[in-house]
Amino acid sequence: MTQLTVTPDTAGITDVPGFEAAGVACDIRQKNDLKRLDLALIFSLRPCTAAGTFTKNAVKAAPVLLDEKHLAEGGTFHGIIANSGNANACTGAEGLRDAQAMAQRAASSLNQKPLAFFVCSTGRIGQPLPMDRVLKGIENAVSERGRTPAHGKKAADAILTSDTRPKTVTVTFTYDGKKHTVAGFAKGAGMIQPNMATMLAFLATDFSVPRSFLQKTISEAVTGTFNCVTVDGDMSTNDTVLMLANGHSGVSVGDKSPRELRVLFAEAVWKACEVLAEKIVSDGEKITKVVEVRVTGAASAEDAGKVARAIGNSLLVKSSWCGEDPNWGRLASSAGASGAKLIEAKLDILYNDVPAMTAGKPHPELKPKWKEIVKARRFTVTLNLHLGKAAFRLLATDLSEGYVTYNKSE
Amino acid sequence: MTQLTVTPDTAGITDVPGFEAAGVACDIRQKNDLKRLDLALIFSLRPCTAAGTFTKNAVKAAPVLLDEKHLAEGGTFHGIIANSGNANACTGAEGLRDAQAMAQRAASSLNQKPLAFFVCSTGRIGQPLPMDRVLKGIENAVSERGRTPAHGKKAADAILTSDTRPKTVTVTFTYDGKKHTVAGFAKGAGMIQPNMATMLAFLATDFSVPRSFLQKTISEAVTGTFNCVTVDGDMSTNDTVLMLANGHSGVSVGDKSPRELRVLFAEAVWKACEVLAEKIVSDGEKITKVVEVRVTGAASAEDAGKVARAIGNSLLVKSSWCGEDPNWGRLASSAGASGAKLIEAKLDILYNDVPAMTAGKPHPELKPKWKEIVKARRFTVTLNLHLGKAAFRLLATDLSEGYVTYNKSE
Repeated sequence: MTQLTVTPDTAGITDVPGFEAAGVACDIRQKNDLKRLDLALIFSLRPCTAAGTFTKNAVKAAPVLLDEKHLAEGGTFHGIIANSGNANACTGAEGLRDAQAMAQRAASSLNQKPLAFFVCSTGRIGQPLPMDRVLKGIENAVSERGRTPAHGKKAADAILTSDTRPKTVTVTFTYDGKKHTVAGFAKGAGMIQPNMATMLAFLATDFSVPRSFLQKTISEAVTGTFNCVTVDGDMSTNDTVLMLANGHSGVSVGDKSPRELRVLFAEAVWKACEVLAEKIVSDGEKITKVVEVRVTGAASAEDAGKVARAIGNSLLVKSSWCGEDPNWGRLASSAGASGAKLIEAKLDILYNDVPAMTAGKPHPELKPKWKEIVKARRFTVTLNLHLGKAAFRLLATDLSEGYVTYNKSE
Repeated sequence: MTQLTVTPDTAGITDVPGFEAAGVACDIRQKNDLKRLDLALIFSLRPCTAAGTFTKNAVKAAPVLLDEKHLAEGGTFHGIIANSGNANACTGAEGLRDAQAMAQRAASSLNQKPLAFFVCSTGRIGQPLPMDRVLKGIENAVSERGRTPAHGKKAADAILTSDTRPKTVTVTFTYDGKKHTVAGFAKGAGMIQPNMATMLAFLATDFSVPRSFLQKTISEAVTGTFNCVTVDGDMSTNDTVLMLANGHSGVSVGDKSPRELRVLFAEAVWKACEVLAEKIVSDGEKITKVVEVRVTGAASAEDAGKVARAIGNSLLVKSSWCGEDPNWGRLASSAGASGAKLIEAKLDILYNDVPAMTAGKPHPELKPKWKEIVKARRFTVTLNLHLGKAAFRLLATDLSEGYVTYNKSE
């Protein structure tokens, strides 16, 4: 069986043949900072199919509304324009006009149709975009675009907000003697609890992929990866995952492809999303711990998710993780408050593989072991409800004083 | 119409004729602290009817299970034993035996039946009660009990955990030439987002009240007061509100009483709960702001509650309140993420009476006014969804670095 090669820190999008990128500085934050990259371009001269998933927030940013429209009108696509520093959300009709203008400027500069471009924004909500800077930035990005790793890295840098590091991934595999690539980049940090996608993530492949197959593949991957992380339980107005397939390799993958190829492609997309989702959690705003919350034995998948999210979003639980205090009583209380079916007398709680409670009975004698486990930067808590077969895995973070300080004012 | 007299800082329970109280120190926290009061007794020689509401958490503390049983078996009642410093939650069969032993010791010392006593505990979860200390404490409380204001105040002190001050209230009114009293005390601070009751609150009246009427009155009051506050969104395993009616005044109130009397009694109970609920929010762990979140124009009451709770529990919103940053975009995003029906183009957001957004359109010119408003310790944010007539009011707090520090380890 062919193996996937997963490389977590790469140039990202320019690792896919046929994709160009750029990252430029246009001082969208209006702080006289002409060094901070804040506008990214992804461009494929070859027309692409595209698929995407968007925030479920009822308040959607203007670029999300625009991208949903572009995706629905469903022609072929040539690229993505994305800015950081301003979310273009809660900006009314003016915001929608601004998002359209961004697509138009990219299209006219690259001799394509506006419908062939997606637009993404991330940053503060409720402020108009400084459009003179943005449009000039788009022109600069078009001029500076290229296919070298340096270009890919600049694009990955340009979408960051409170992230402390870029987030890229490249997955390759060989099939039928030919090397194929799925690669991408993402940004995360705060307002992270996706209910569809989260944050911004852009992926590309050099396969030729029919649109519906691409959508199914990315949707499944997003459900199992980006939608299973939480930093602060807040779902953004801008969450977007987009994937472009440019067919550069001359090989197609779709419903009628051999099973091995379909599985390999789906695994490559899933793995790329998984790596980016983990990077987002690990770089959550001012976090000190990444905690995998595993819920097993739930009566339903919905219940398993409720318990995991109640724990991963509990302020008391998250604070105790920050303090390296194995306060398992707070896990039990949050699980009980989640609304899921739960019987205390059946409940097991474990830190890694060391029980804190089995069948509702505490094991205080094992406390020294839990205390050691929660000192690690990453550990697992498992709750087995013993009520059924459903399970859920959530990647969560602790909550530090630094998060509050950072978010007191933006 | 008769007026209610509401006094927010009183002796609490001993203001009701016929009720005795005590607060004693028995070092339940096992820190060699023989000064900190940690066990309270409420006692009525005259038999009482009782009503109560309890946590909806699927993981219920042993004393909650015991109290539900005592209430259901429904005889007459003589009092309440309550300790702080240990929640007696997640303590299995041993915990239930301990709660029973507490009721038995109170009963035998006071020559009553165990079923005539309620037991409440609050504090750390998952640790066995030091029963030798607790049982000795109960005996001391029985010996020291009395009806003076000093006795009432000691009882109010003895149930506190991370609270910084006692929480008492006394409501009186005159009807038919006779003065009547509803009074009580409570504790709050952390793990505060009731879904039934919250925390511990004990109320008493000298009316004679049939049990079902008392239950209806307290349930309605709890729904509109204790159930509309949040400090950290965490629902406790121990939330309990209990009310005792001893009939000391010789006057009955029930379904067949004159309307004026029924309304006065219900208002007195509501007001007492409201004052205690406000005290709990104002004394939330390390808070610096109390924010009233008003949601109006919602399509349904459920939607109104969802929006208010999404805002009041959002880490990003709470952090910005702490920083006195009028970041209304985060309010819009949380409202949109709540799952309630919401149309951005209809949404109004106001700080006190100053709009930040009307019909989806931002008013950046008014920013200096919001900035001034959020500097106050208490302010109101209003979201009018313009989709219907349902409304909800939630009393919420900010989130400070101090909360995280405090809860890193207990």
